[in-house]
Amino acid sequence: MGQVHPVFLYSNNADIQQNRSLTETFFFLLFMIVTHRERERGRHRQREKQAPCTRSPTWDSIRGLQDRALGQRQAPNRCATQGSLLLRLLKHYQAVPYLHKVIVVWNNVGEKGPDELRNSLGPHPVPVIFKLQTTKRMRNRLQVFPELETNAVLMVDNDTLISTQDLVFAFSVWQQFPDQIVGFVPRKHVSTSSGIYSYGGFELQTPGFGNGDQYSVVLIGASFFNSKYLDLFQRQPPALHALIDEIQNCDDIAMNFIIAKHTGKTSGVFVKPVNMGNLEKESNGGYPGMWHRAEHFLQRSYCINKLVNIYNSMPLKYSNIMISQFGFPYANHKRKI
Amino acid sequence: MGQVHPVFLYSNNADIQQNRSLTETFFFLLFMIVTHRERERGRHRQREKQAPCTRSPTWDSIRGLQDRALGQRQAPNRCATQGSLLLRLLKHYQAVPYLHKVIVVWNNVGEKGPDELRNSLGPHPVPVIFKLQTTKRMRNRLQVFPELETNAVLMVDNDTLISTQDLVFAFSVWQQFPDQIVGFVPRKHVSTSSGIYSYGGFELQTPGFGNGDQYSVVLIGASFFNSKYLDLFQRQPPALHALIDEIQNCDDIAMNFIIAKHTGKTSGVFVKPVNMGNLEKESNGGYPGMWHRAEHFLQRSYCINKLVNIYNSMPLKYSNIMISQFGFPYANHKRKI
Repeated sequence: MGQVHPVFLYSNNADIQQNRSLTETFFFLLFMIVTHRERERGRHRQREKQAPCTRSPTWDSIRGLQDRALGQRQAPNRCATQGSLLLRLLKHYQAVPYLHKVIVVWNNVGEKGPDELRNSLGPHPVPVIFKLQTTKRMRNRLQVFPELETNAVLMVDNDTLISTQDLVFAFSVWQQFPDQIVGFVPRKHVSTSSGIYSYGGFELQTPGFGNGDQYSVVLIGASFFNSKYLDLFQRQPPALHALIDEIQNCDDIAMNFIIAKHTGKTSGVFVKPVNMGNLEKESNGGYPGMWHRAEHFLQRSYCINKLVNIYNSMPLKYSNIMISQFGFPYANHKRKI
Repeated sequence: MGQVHPVFLYSNNADIQQNRSLTETFFFLLFMIVTHRERERGRHRQREKQAPCTRSPTWDSIRGLQDRALGQRQAPNRCATQGSLLLRLLKHYQAVPYLHKVIVVWNNVGEKGPDELRNSLGPHPVPVIFKLQTTKRMRNRLQVFPELETNAVLMVDNDTLISTQDLVFAFSVWQQFPDQIVGFVPRKHVSTSSGIYSYGGFELQTPGFGNGDQYSVVLIGASFFNSKYLDLFQRQPPALHALIDEIQNCDDIAMNFIIAKHTGKTSGVFVKPVNMGNLEKESNGGYPGMWHRAEHFLQRSYCINKLVNIYNSMPLKYSNIMISQFGFPYANHKRKI
């Protein structure tokens, strides 16, 4: 745990936020991903033309899907601009307790800046900082930002809504597991008989594993982790950074590798979300096709094998632990699942 | 963690059990409680006369109730003898992997010994040892038995069936939290405005606590814990042992106090059981009346306040973490609860 700075927030909801030190608050890093979105725009164009324009989703309309990451690189929503989505996200997350500061990593190089957004945001209790990037890079979100003063970082992709209750609970879990990623989307690797690793989700069976399932990766796009790992990421071999820049993907798998290697533990702890949704997925009316998911997983499998080469080891460890909040929703510890 | 003894099991199911060291196995302590059962026999006599004799429950017929402990001191089943219940339990638990040895703490002082049971047990892969007690005491189950060689102890009351899957998972959780109680029945204390503590379950609201719930006690009658805590229990002040002997109750709350005080952490970690049932409750056709539960909780509240006096502090800490096995039952990490 880093040093405790007795810095206080300048906040409107003073009851909740004031007098909280940096160890009791977290930093919110919202990442504007454009690179992949644009790349896939061409592929989805035909489909988009056919799809009806659904109305903008409300928070209540979003089902508690944890699999939003499967659609992380999916078709963009032509019915809502990135700006309006981001505005909704910022307004939602402003109400989360323990929030210290918000950084928006503005990866939309060459596109119109966030001035309009800034003006539209209105009064906001927690400071919002836009970091305009000069090169489009996936790993832009993993910089050591000088504004980041807390031990805890909450990182969220720009299409993900996580309920306040889930965030508050996950933050309390992170405080108990401060050297691991505490997040809402689990994934895993499996070894194949050819010695190659595969990457996938729940549908990927672990050979020789009976009842239940395991995970070895917790995606960082909806997670808490220690800010010291941003520094650790920067100090990795150039080959790692080159790999991520080459394919503009897998920075999150890399973080899992680095943390598992650093701690000797499982990289992450999975918290089952109660209310979490993908804004774009919902406004597009459902899941992306399986072809897309398969392609995405193939690319990630490629990454895992490259990472094993770079580190000359496979540090990822399996976990079978799923954490929920005791008694929320009501009496969940009694109900059958 | 204690010393690792490379002792191997003499076991019939050699595939699973052989070559496991004592750190990889656990010890099973089954407690024959008679004291309370007998005391309540009188109270329940009238009710028993009216109740029809239900058929003996099968494993499949037992709903996954975690609240069996509420009926811990409930009416005895006149349709099944203690012997036949114990036989069923022993047969069930014999099939659990990682099991090193079974001790039955035979608290039925002056009653017919377990010879008949021993003969009925038939071939059993794991050794079963009967420890005949000379005085009826609740805390007989917390002795430092010389036969107990493993770090892990599984303690189960003599009316509780826990599924193999739940036990194997909870044991894996205990290995990750080896200095805490890892168990299936959470309880809590709350402070009242008068400065007195109350004890209860889910129905007892924590003042000032919003969504969700908390627990501060994990009952040891369905739990794993470190065998070193049996020794720690023996080294407690005589006033503690006297309290437990006086009311023949609360040895489990005392263990939570001792462990919380010793570690500075929450005493226990709650694992949500998938299949766990109370044999006697089932064969009696349901729950005991609320009058009984209320009386039981009053006695336990009395204990908590006495314990605070003995230790001159309240070491119990709250937790809001509930652990489930990832992917069991199938896709539980996706389903709404």
